[in-house]
Amino acid sequence: MDLVTELRNLLTDEQVTANPTVLENHSRDESYHAPSLPDVVVFPKDKEDVRKVLQFANDHGIPVVPFGLGTSLEGHVIPYKGGISLDFQMMNRILEVRPDDMLVRVQPGVTRTQVNNELKKFGLFFSVDPGADATLGGMAATNASGTTAVRYGVMRDQVRDLEVVLADGRVIRTGGLAAKSSSGYHLTGLFVGSEGTLGVFTELTLRVYGIPEAILAARAVFPTVKNAVDAAVAIRSTGIPVARVELVDARSIRQVNSHSKTHYPEMPTLFLEFHGNEDGLKRDVASARELAMDQGCLAFEFETDSKARSQLWEARHNLAYAFIHGFPGKKQMVTDVCVPLTELPGAVEYARELLNDAGMEGGVLGHVGDGNFHVIMMVNPGDRADLHRAESLNEKIVEYAISRGGTCTGEHGVGVGKAKYQRREHGDALAVMHSFKQVLDPKGILNPGKIFSVE
Amino acid sequence: MDLVTELRNLLTDEQVTANPTVLENHSRDESYHAPSLPDVVVFPKDKEDVRKVLQFANDHGIPVVPFGLGTSLEGHVIPYKGGISLDFQMMNRILEVRPDDMLVRVQPGVTRTQVNNELKKFGLFFSVDPGADATLGGMAATNASGTTAVRYGVMRDQVRDLEVVLADGRVIRTGGLAAKSSSGYHLTGLFVGSEGTLGVFTELTLRVYGIPEAILAARAVFPTVKNAVDAAVAIRSTGIPVARVELVDARSIRQVNSHSKTHYPEMPTLFLEFHGNEDGLKRDVASARELAMDQGCLAFEFETDSKARSQLWEARHNLAYAFIHGFPGKKQMVTDVCVPLTELPGAVEYARELLNDAGMEGGVLGHVGDGNFHVIMMVNPGDRADLHRAESLNEKIVEYAISRGGTCTGEHGVGVGKAKYQRREHGDALAVMHSFKQVLDPKGILNPGKIFSVE
Repeated sequence: MDLVTELRNLLTDEQVTANPTVLENHSRDESYHAPSLPDVVVFPKDKEDVRKVLQFANDHGIPVVPFGLGTSLEGHVIPYKGGISLDFQMMNRILEVRPDDMLVRVQPGVTRTQVNNELKKFGLFFSVDPGADATLGGMAATNASGTTAVRYGVMRDQVRDLEVVLADGRVIRTGGLAAKSSSGYHLTGLFVGSEGTLGVFTELTLRVYGIPEAILAARAVFPTVKNAVDAAVAIRSTGIPVARVELVDARSIRQVNSHSKTHYPEMPTLFLEFHGNEDGLKRDVASARELAMDQGCLAFEFETDSKARSQLWEARHNLAYAFIHGFPGKKQMVTDVCVPLTELPGAVEYARELLNDAGMEGGVLGHVGDGNFHVIMMVNPGDRADLHRAESLNEKIVEYAISRGGTCTGEHGVGVGKAKYQRREHGDALAVMHSFKQVLDPKGILNPGKIFSVE
Repeated sequence: MDLVTELRNLLTDEQVTANPTVLENHSRDESYHAPSLPDVVVFPKDKEDVRKVLQFANDHGIPVVPFGLGTSLEGHVIPYKGGISLDFQMMNRILEVRPDDMLVRVQPGVTRTQVNNELKKFGLFFSVDPGADATLGGMAATNASGTTAVRYGVMRDQVRDLEVVLADGRVIRTGGLAAKSSSGYHLTGLFVGSEGTLGVFTELTLRVYGIPEAILAARAVFPTVKNAVDAAVAIRSTGIPVARVELVDARSIRQVNSHSKTHYPEMPTLFLEFHGNEDGLKRDVASARELAMDQGCLAFEFETDSKARSQLWEARHNLAYAFIHGFPGKKQMVTDVCVPLTELPGAVEYARELLNDAGMEGGVLGHVGDGNFHVIMMVNPGDRADLHRAESLNEKIVEYAISRGGTCTGEHGVGVGKAKYQRREHGDALAVMHSFKQVLDPKGILNPGKIFSVE
């Protein structure tokens, strides 16, 4: 059987390709994980196309890997067992904005920036910001979050409804348009974060928010990482509704300075943002400043004007870029643990010690209001010793987090990189997860090898 | 086999009873649904007791119905197929408060008031307030919410981790202590709202919040229900972080006046609450007042002092009581639809018309910031015509909601009362839900007859 011909018969010629460059583009993501080619790339135009492809794949036991823009960080979109890479770039329409219901309905290939450009016209915005301009389908598949989760929640909190095509071609809707429901099992929450292993999303209805009356950004420099994290925890505990609170360590600031020719103090820095009305923000920032000062804060600046805010946050925005461009030819390995807030100072210090002990270059940054932080390590995937050193450090940080009630991944997802920690983290619950997978995908065609180490 | 003897052999004598009064107390909830006796009531002391009972019940195909305080409104705790009522009154300990992690770990029999009394010592509070002083286990089982959901979310948003005993006696943990996670399938969200049909909770870890610096309550009177609802929608859309926004219709205010000898204007009234810092609240309430005035608001009062706030909200607080005591001998049937915000004015008007057309006594009230509202009807469960009339009205309101993207139950849950709407609301997703039920409870011992009409 010729897979390309068969699929072209199902869809149209231009929707199916085995062009080597296209296959190559669908063989990797933004991480250090080894690439692997799909047999064919398919571009569905609608739900019906997805249904046809899945039914065909299920009948013939062919793996299907949904693909958005390939910005995943744990190998989620890499087709390690070949088969079909299902690319959603032709399903990128914003279907409906319901401004007074504070909802938007989109196809899975719509990106975060695209939806925000549209929402702006209505005075609304979509809150989840993982950094990369990922597709909303991909963000839902990995339960992405990012800098604003501390205030607005993660991707799972925004998804009101999903249209999902199951492995056998059945199409279901998981939710509805109501703001809350106690009707039946919460399938929406289960499919969000399922990484393409339970079904394929063909439509998403997402919660959006009114653009706040006023936004205030702040930057606070501390003598130690512990001071910075303690300040973040203190601000969080008092209930000040901070919208973002990001930690960048001294090494990372140095990377930015060297890359952007800037002169920021090379010390642990918190980047904060507050949303609200002007009067309330003044009080919030005054309270936050006081709590920062209690932790030995050396400089506390804030701005409300949009351009000045951007400048104040510049070092945070340029961070990933500064690392990627500072180490040409290398790929990033990024840890992603999330721990209870009280465990955060210890976990961050432990990570920094591990980096120093291993003599490794790397930055520590994080969404510290949630207890989620990243160690960015630049590795040479071709150098086994380098890779092994970084993986061993990753493993130690994960072990530390899990042993303190935390998780191996706060927002990047499991993919292949964190599959080995699932049993340790979830215990017997992993068997329950796997039983659901088996019910919905008995032939194991949906993104095989992801989440579960052994299928 | 003598069930009582067998169970006493497993546990202790005083933990197992078939005393008629105790059976009777476990045969009903707070709704109009017909009572049905369990064969035996069991009081587990710990997880191990629950495990033993479930394993025994599973081996012998005996139904098990978890029981908190019996405040459910759709017959959830009624053992229609007999068997074991598993009462959690002996598992009512607050196990741990982690103030800086903003978490509390409890046994399922702990009540909402009990946990708040403890949390107050730490300057914290648990946000979900369904009115009744229900157990937290029961609230998680039904995904309860109430007046504060508009700001803090529903029960599902608060549950960080569950310890669950499965039908076969396996014990799993569904989550962890981290504020967010993308690790594995989100079982926590699935078990919350599963109404005892997938497993039995033996421990809950819940998110808590800092008591806000300042609280402001307001009451606004409107000429029509539509004006009141439109004002609520407008306040919500502008992003003012209102903590509660409750509608009470004119008929309900009249009921309160007659019951409490008060003199509130008998007109549609919004009860609001704002949480934040004092400066921010002043601005928020000024903006809310302006939006209310745009909708023809006739009187807008607000208070910050705790006692004055309580008085301002008195009519809302006394509402259910006023109805229950105003119709001695009757039971309440309460509709619970939730619709998209833009559909709310129409839905509330439709419900009021139905009540008037049927010549029925009943109040309309609701958590209108979420699109969730209730029609309280006092019915005589012995009078079939009365019951039928109320059920037919309930059905029409549900049909209206579902046809507009809403849900048959925003917060009360399915139980037996809403089971007949599940297929209509969820379509083929219902089969997916049922397949998960079959995987985890193949013998159907867990709260049989609830959620799914046909097992």
